[in-house]
Parts: sequence; C-alpha cells; structure tokens
Amino acid sequence: MEKEKFNIVVFSGDMDKVLAAFILATTAASMNMEVRMFFTFWGLNVLRKKKFTSGKNLLQKLMNFMNKGGAGRLPLSRFNMLGMGPMMMKAMMKQSKVPSIEEFVKMSVDMGIKLVACTTTFSFMGFKEEDFIDGIDSYTGAATFLGEVREGRVSYFI
Amino acid sequence: MEKEKFNIVVFSGDMDKVLAAFILATTAASMNMEVRMFFTFWGLNVLRKKKFTSGKNLLQKLMNFMNKGGAGRLPLSRFNMLGMGPMMMKAMMKQSKVPSIEEFVKMSVDMGIKLVACTTTFSFMGFKEEDFIDGIDSYTGAATFLGEVREGRVSYFI
Amino acid sequence: MEKEKFNIVVFSGDMDKVLAAFILATTAASMNMEVRMFFTFWGLNVLRKKKFTSGKNLLQKLMNFMNKGGAGRLPLSRFNMLGMGPMMMKAMMKQSKVPSIEEFVKMSVDMGIKLVACTTTFSFMGFKEEDFIDGIDSYTGAATFLGEVREGRVSYFI
Repeated sequence: MEKEKFNIVVFSGDMDKVLAAFILATTAASMNMEVRMFFTFWGLNVLRKKKFTSGKNLLQKLMNFMNKGGAGRLPLSRFNMLGMGPMMMKAMMKQSKVPSIEEFVKMSVDMGIKLVACTTTFSFMGFKEEDFIDGIDSYTGAATFLGEVREGRVSYFI
Repeated sequence: MEKEKFNIVVFSGDMDKVLAAFILATTAASMNMEVRMFFTFWGLNVLRKKKFTSGKNLLQKLMNFMNKGGAGRLPLSRFNMLGMGPMMMKAMMKQSKVPSIEEFVKMSVDMGIKLVACTTTFSFMGFKEEDFIDGIDSYTGAATFLGEVREGRVSYFI
Repeated sequence: MEKEKFNIVVFSGDMDKVLAAFILATTAASMNMEVRMFFTFWGLNVLRKKKFTSGKNLLQKLMNFMNKGGAGRLPLSRFNMLGMGPMMMKAMMKQSKVPSIEEFVKMSVDMGIKLVACTTTFSFMGFKEEDFIDGIDSYTGAATFLGEVREGRVSYFI
C-alpha cells in the first residue's frame, strides 16, 4: 500500500519555526507517512554549511554576509536579542531533551524524510550545491515539489 | 454524516495572525465543519492566564518573564511600537465591531471549536495546566493532532 | 474534466513571502490547476494602489499612513534596514530575471489566477474598492473563500 504524503514548505529560517517544522515532520514520519521538506528562501539556511557563501556578485556577497547559513545559528522570530535568545532557547531545549536543529536534520535523514533544496532560490541568492550539507535528497524547483504536493494529503507553509 | 475536519496549527502569538486564525476557525465552524485549533509555541500565549508563569528553572523564568501570556496582551507582527500598535488595532476592531481575541476565544468554545494545547511546548517552556484558562478541550502532543489532520480536508499553519 | 483547485491565503505583506506566494501560484497555474489567492490583512497592500488611502477616522488614517500600499514598496521580513533590504532584493531579482511583484501581479491576471480581496479587512482598515488596482477578480469574505478551499486539494496560509 502506498504511504500518505505529507509535504512541508520551510520558507522560514527562524529557529523556532524550523523546530516546529521538524517536530511535525518527524512525528509524521513515525506515523508512517512519506515526508518531504522543501527548503526555500531563508529556510535554506538550515541546509547550508556553516561557512561563508560567496555568491556571484557584490549584491549576493553582501546579502550572504548578512544572511548566514548553518543549522546551528538560526535566529529566533521573537526575543532574538542579538543572539541571546537563541542561546537561551538552545539551553532550554537541552534541559528538556528536545533535539537541536542539527540533530533534527540528521534524525530526519535517518528516518527517510526527504530534504529538498529549492533551486529557484539558488540562482537568486548565488548558492551552489557545494555550499550545502550532505544528506540532501534532491535539488528541485517549485514545479517538482507541487507535483508531490498535489498527490499528498496535507501540506504546510512554514 | 460525518463533518469535514478543519485543523489549524496556531504557532504564532501575534495578535493579527491569531485574529486571522479565529476568523477562519469561526467561519469554518459556522459552515458546519468540525474545527480544531492546535496552539503551540508562542500561540499558547492565547490560552495562558494573564499572570506570571514561573517555570521550573531560571531560564524558563526569564523566558516566561519576557514571553507574557494572556489573550488580551498579544503583540502585533507589524507596527507593534512597544504596545501602541496593539492598542490602535484593538480600538479599530472595536469601531468595526470585530470581536477581541478574548471574545473570540469564548465564542469558539461556545461554537464547539476544539482548543487544543500542545504538550511538547509545555515541558519545554515550563508551563503547567493550572497556567491555562478554562474551556480548553485537551492537552495533547503533535502525534494526536496529526492523527486528526490526516483525516481532515485542509489544514493551515499560522 | 474539472481542474484541481489550489488556494492560497496571502496574509503577509512582506516582499519575500509574497514572492514565494506568487512563485507557487504561477507554478500551479502552469500545471493547469485553478488558482485563487485570497489577500487579507497586510497582504492587501499588494493589491492597493500606490497612493494614500485615507480611511474613515483618525485611527484608520494613522494606520494607513504607516501601512503603505503598493506592490512596489513592500518591506522584507528580514534585513529590511529601512528600505535598503528591499532595494537589494529587487536588484538581485532583476539580475536573476525573477519578475518583480508588480510583474507577478500582471502575469497572474494574464494566467487566469483569481486575485481575491478580503472584505472583512476592508471595513476594519477603512479601505474602499477605489483604493485597489484593476484586475481583481472579486471582493469577498472568509466564508466564500473557505467554500472554495473545501473543494480544493491543498491550501496554504502565507
């Protein structure tokens, strides 16, 4: 029997929203659904390596200097306080044994969740495949993703 | 005949987004759909009593000091201006006879909308059931909610 | 054969989120789906003319003075930097031949995407139909929109 499909667009690069996305995704996977996460825009920061991504021109370099990648350094949508908020949140997550975003990424790959990187954002922001971590299922555009979405049951935009 | 299910994740604790969630929820309920709102993360502030929630340790106390509960004191996602924005918005809502968030909560309970509080966030933020208002349908985790979502038609993440 | 319905609530008035909404909408339309975008709250700024909307009273005038309309002057959800961010983003979009929001609005109308303006927000914010651009399919409330949503396959809240 075919598994039900559960597709999430991860547009946000905020730690709290990304955490919610991973909690929903891993819960759905443990309920035997086929889960796909489509990372786009700021959400791509989750899958970027923690290093400077140069970009092809001055504008992209400037944007990528501000818009840092790496699952371990996402800001909070609230109470960011120049990085104090995320530090607090990480400590609180550790206390309650909630996995960190980096751990959720690894866990998701292990559970067979498909991590997809949006190529439309790539050209736009000047990203290259080498800027991204291992374990990514595929690099596709919106059309391929929507093809999966229309076969699925529920889909969220986060 | 079974009612169609309409499920909303209320992640946001912003007054404007929460207002949109309640307008959609009460509209769906009046169209005879079975509506469930799953409050999580900042969204839980809508269901928290307007009083200080201590938390179990210093970090939680600090976070809960900043992250105030109470449906009547949610910030705006835009033009918050240290609380001036929400005051303006409340006055505008009153002028147009749009119910306040507190009124929407009561109305939702009366209409049979199921208000569900996310227990995953509970342990994390150090909340206890006594910190919450009356009228909550249930306290559950993501798995129980997704079980309803997969039986439903449409679901939003707000 | 009837087309599959794809419905998007555009709550956000942020340039980056609105861009994501239009990319999804035009992609779905090119995949032969019937697409409807329901603009509400800050999202209505996309469909407002680039001119001052007075409103009916002082509060509405004040809010509309801050909350400027016009698809060409939406802020960014991140790195807005008093308008510097949107300028950078527009230049980056141009470099990569990504259409501007204004161009996406026109393209959407040409592709038969239904742009719907939420009347609930209208009374609330003091908007009038004359404040809006040409090409809008209809002015409706949440109930009419949800009627379409429940017949559709997938729907996003952006």
